[in-house]
Amino acid sequence: MNIIVDAMGGDYAPEAVVKGCVSAAKDFDINLTFVGVKEKIQAVLQNCNYEREKITVVHTSEVIDGDDDPTVAIRQKKDSSMRVGLKMLAGGEGDAFVCAGNTGALIAGATLIVKRIKGIRRVALAPIMPSETGCFLLVDAGANAECTPSFLKQFAIMGSIYMEKIMGIRNPRVSLVNIGSEEAKGTPLVVDTHKALKEVPFHYCGYIEARDIPKGDADVVVCDGFTGNVILKFMEGMGMVFYDMLKEIFYKNIVTKLSAVAVKGGLKKLKKTMDYTEYGGAPLLGVSKPVVKAHGSSNEKAFYHAIRQAVMCVKSNLVDEITDNIQKYGDDPRKETR
Amino acid sequence: MNIIVDAMGGDYAPEAVVKGCVSAAKDFDINLTFVGVKEKIQAVLQNCNYEREKITVVHTSEVIDGDDDPTVAIRQKKDSSMRVGLKMLAGGEGDAFVCAGNTGALIAGATLIVKRIKGIRRVALAPIMPSETGCFLLVDAGANAECTPSFLKQFAIMGSIYMEKIMGIRNPRVSLVNIGSEEAKGTPLVVDTHKALKEVPFHYCGYIEARDIPKGDADVVVCDGFTGNVILKFMEGMGMVFYDMLKEIFYKNIVTKLSAVAVKGGLKKLKKTMDYTEYGGAPLLGVSKPVVKAHGSSNEKAFYHAIRQAVMCVKSNLVDEITDNIQKYGDDPRKETR
Repeated sequence: MNIIVDAMGGDYAPEAVVKGCVSAAKDFDINLTFVGVKEKIQAVLQNCNYEREKITVVHTSEVIDGDDDPTVAIRQKKDSSMRVGLKMLAGGEGDAFVCAGNTGALIAGATLIVKRIKGIRRVALAPIMPSETGCFLLVDAGANAECTPSFLKQFAIMGSIYMEKIMGIRNPRVSLVNIGSEEAKGTPLVVDTHKALKEVPFHYCGYIEARDIPKGDADVVVCDGFTGNVILKFMEGMGMVFYDMLKEIFYKNIVTKLSAVAVKGGLKKLKKTMDYTEYGGAPLLGVSKPVVKAHGSSNEKAFYHAIRQAVMCVKSNLVDEITDNIQKYGDDPRKETR
Repeated sequence: MNIIVDAMGGDYAPEAVVKGCVSAAKDFDINLTFVGVKEKIQAVLQNCNYEREKITVVHTSEVIDGDDDPTVAIRQKKDSSMRVGLKMLAGGEGDAFVCAGNTGALIAGATLIVKRIKGIRRVALAPIMPSETGCFLLVDAGANAECTPSFLKQFAIMGSIYMEKIMGIRNPRVSLVNIGSEEAKGTPLVVDTHKALKEVPFHYCGYIEARDIPKGDADVVVCDGFTGNVILKFMEGMGMVFYDMLKEIFYKNIVTKLSAVAVKGGLKKLKKTMDYTEYGGAPLLGVSKPVVKAHGSSNEKAFYHAIRQAVMCVKSNLVDEITDNIQKYGDDPRKETR
């Protein structure tokens, strides 16, 4: 198996990318292809212990930045690490692609270059999020600000397959975000999706209110990309505020600092529970080959887990599973034309 | 000044309602009219110390429950405390109405019975939410799952006036929830509202990403009611999960329990920071007389603050302020017909 990696994506590229991925490659016994500025990648590799024949470096001269306009950048930066990596994936030179770069560009590039699975209407960004009792998949977290019921139905199917095949959760509980639990409550989008999801032979549990998401009441949380992005970022923001406040409490004086020592283990566990790096990145569901979006602020550990995730996607034939199920259940009877 | 109170609304009615409101009435030197089951109200009043002539009790035989269908209940339960209270407000028998009952029924009832301010397209639910640096107004938090740019524009205007007049924040920072900071990002609703808000002479600061909301980067956070309800409930859920985890950490053993004592003050402050009861309830913005929705789980303190809030609305002529500003700036040039 060969995983292609955009060595230039993310806040700590290429150092954290190369180190984290090489470490994972050894553990999972796979090959890697790093795409990016050769000298920079080689400089990091020099300090890594690895089998030379298992790692390839492909030089590219351009980088897509976080500030770049996604669709413009992916079309115009022809020699960017992201675009070249996606081209290689599409051309069969690797089995999966891992990238921590510009999210919009990656979604646009994966759709344009690697293409969607046949029958899939939209590619979804589906991060694994921490909850009190484990984790859940949020789909869509921002790839599609506007959705139709058939998009959401497909997101639910893909999310369920992902949580079962990759995260090992049997019969994942799939829920649809709504602002109440009554049947008729919510927008037409939600009400129509609810009807459509009842017809699908997955474990659809109905509506979930946002209050119950952090508790871990669902394994797959389905919503439009606007709502999903708000949830993703609000969770991030709340987490940061909580930590700031706790830090302030414990750093106050010598007594509080001592008490911090006593609960150190517990606080560490709390932090770990709320730590996305444990789970790797966000798969782009619906692309015809596995593409994993690592968080922009990914450290070595996060890249390690993103590689693990990509390996799991390849090994479990995720794309074939999705293709089969979308053919069977993913088509909307009303044949939306959007 | 006379504030009408639905004595039967909320989880701890009528005890917490009556006690909290009586205590506030004494401090702010106002009259109260409790609407609800007379014997139950009188039973609580017996244990309260108050001036008899300042408190009136109006007997009603019905109660609108949390599970009732809002529009059906408000039309059919003619002798419910909520409906009778709203009728009295509309008829001029009081200056404001405070109620912790069924939110949907209260919004429907306020719109049908008390009516909207002239020119206002939709009534918005606008809770005061805690942030790291203070508090912010979330508008709309669920009254309108679907919105148009002109609804949101009016929400922004009303929210700004509320934060200035009631919360004493000079020139409140008004922001619009979006999933990115680029001009063209987001749904057509958001992009069009952004354009409209730039024309209004309030302190409009542009888009806010959900990540920056808990930090307190805006005083008025504007969004459609679906998004707002997700934010409101997600914050509630995250808070609960966080407390559960902290509790677990500190209750582990004798050493951690001792360390909890050292940081007790800090944790209490943290809890207070995240405590909605400090701020009272959510005003229903756009109604032609002040209506305050107290949280369903309001305790005495929350009712105290809800009364304080209602008193402030009356004293500051909030409704007149909104009326004037909506006449000047609230009309959408494109004259939406919805």
